[in-house]
Amino acid sequence: VRLPRIGVFDSGVGGLTVLKAMAEQLPAHYIYFGDTARLPYGTKSADTVARYAIGATRFLEAQNIDLLVIACNTATALALPAIKAAAHVPVVGVVEPGAAAAAHVSKNRAAIVIATDATVSSHAYRDALQQHGLEAVEKACPLFVPLVEEGWIDHPVTEQVAKIYLGEATAVAPDGADVLVLACTHYPLIYPLLRRILPDRVQIVDSAESTARVVKKMISEDPVFSTRSGEPEVAAGQQGTTLDGGLKAAHRTFRFYVTDSVDKFKRLATRFLGRQVDKVEHVDLGG
Amino acid sequence: VRLPRIGVFDSGVGGLTVLKAMAEQLPAHYIYFGDTARLPYGTKSADTVARYAIGATRFLEAQNIDLLVIACNTATALALPAIKAAAHVPVVGVVEPGAAAAAHVSKNRAAIVIATDATVSSHAYRDALQQHGLEAVEKACPLFVPLVEEGWIDHPVTEQVAKIYLGEATAVAPDGADVLVLACTHYPLIYPLLRRILPDRVQIVDSAESTARVVKKMISEDPVFSTRSGEPEVAAGQQGTTLDGGLKAAHRTFRFYVTDSVDKFKRLATRFLGRQVDKVEHVDLGG
Repeated sequence: VRLPRIGVFDSGVGGLTVLKAMAEQLPAHYIYFGDTARLPYGTKSADTVARYAIGATRFLEAQNIDLLVIACNTATALALPAIKAAAHVPVVGVVEPGAAAAAHVSKNRAAIVIATDATVSSHAYRDALQQHGLEAVEKACPLFVPLVEEGWIDHPVTEQVAKIYLGEATAVAPDGADVLVLACTHYPLIYPLLRRILPDRVQIVDSAESTARVVKKMISEDPVFSTRSGEPEVAAGQQGTTLDGGLKAAHRTFRFYVTDSVDKFKRLATRFLGRQVDKVEHVDLGG
Repeated sequence: VRLPRIGVFDSGVGGLTVLKAMAEQLPAHYIYFGDTARLPYGTKSADTVARYAIGATRFLEAQNIDLLVIACNTATALALPAIKAAAHVPVVGVVEPGAAAAAHVSKNRAAIVIATDATVSSHAYRDALQQHGLEAVEKACPLFVPLVEEGWIDHPVTEQVAKIYLGEATAVAPDGADVLVLACTHYPLIYPLLRRILPDRVQIVDSAESTARVVKKMISEDPVFSTRSGEPEVAAGQQGTTLDGGLKAAHRTFRFYVTDSVDKFKRLATRFLGRQVDKVEHVDLGG
């Protein structure tokens, strides 16, 4: 038995919310790949996103991963089947875990999904929610990512933009919609602001958190790995289950690879993970 | 004598403001390349931007261009020397024309430059303005591009963001700064909004417009081309010197190449050019 090696792929820093959620629940070696030279994926076509995602998959497989997490809603929505076909390890996307979690909490079987342009256009969430018997409206919120990256996490402008977007979404939402799905990995950072704006009857489901739970379950059920029956987690917990504690405890190791500036990634990653990030390397996948 | 073939390069749709300004002044065959699969450049490193720009240069040179316009402030600021070294035709960037125009109108020899993160970090405008004897402060406005692309050209949120950015810039600007340089090709679209916010004593200089005048002058001075002494321009003017009129008059032809979705480009290009855009082709430069 040994620690699993988990590959985590995103177009940029957004997938760090998924990494953080996983690291808090699951001891492992984490290898993160952020395709920052080609971000954002949210404005690009399915063909382009699939091509980039498969390049990332090849890179991460070369790092001997046991499992690949597509910590990017756009890449999952547009390219999950293509990635699964190309990959030699199990692949987990963020859409199905998010949809399943929404189905779990919605009493009225009706949801609002907020995401990037590309994720909305793919209708991946609407289709996944329909499989769970939920009706959904999908709303593109293209300003949220730049607002988060500007650091305006709790800012009057972000609040005004959120009120406009959520107002437009609510106007066309199915009656009684009682769950909001954060279908972009940047959005958990504005959770408090969204929570403040939304009526109490609407619950917020975070795809990042839902995905982390699915990955933990998959790893726990595999006897190859040392992370079963919660024991190592408890051990890590005694030394702190935060990302920081995990690092110190050596129950989690982290490596980061990016295709653009290492410094910019470090700066943004600090905001996402709430701690200093080292061990960031530049890689060039060509193009 | 013949019409010149002018290559125009940008990371996306922003360079269309330069194309529009040129087409209104200069009959020519315009070949536009938008590297939309890899936009935005404004958040990327100099090495990455230079690599992308040289790929675009190769592509446009294969279309038999006489002159290459880097209609992208970030690519100009980060990679103009590299592009000039790689190119086999004359290359015009947007920084020097913008700086020269600012120097022309500033009485107090002090300017504010607004641009993307990458353009600001390069200090290309500060250095170019200094050559003209102007002191300058540079302010990154990363939310303007997504706001323009969201279509919020004249929107209360954009006005609020502009007031914050310009307020921050003014607070650190040299005394008596009397010119604002729009050092990003997206910004001309919010010119009316910026004009409303700024005090009357501050003039706005648009790099796109300034660059078009420089290109017109270069072409007019070359006896190879039929566009001298203003004659063909007057002829075109009789049939309308707008982009639309130019197309009808066949004194200007346009071809557009993009690396990502053709449909998304067409939709945004319509907003930038104020007319329907056809003849858009997808190209794949690899990567």
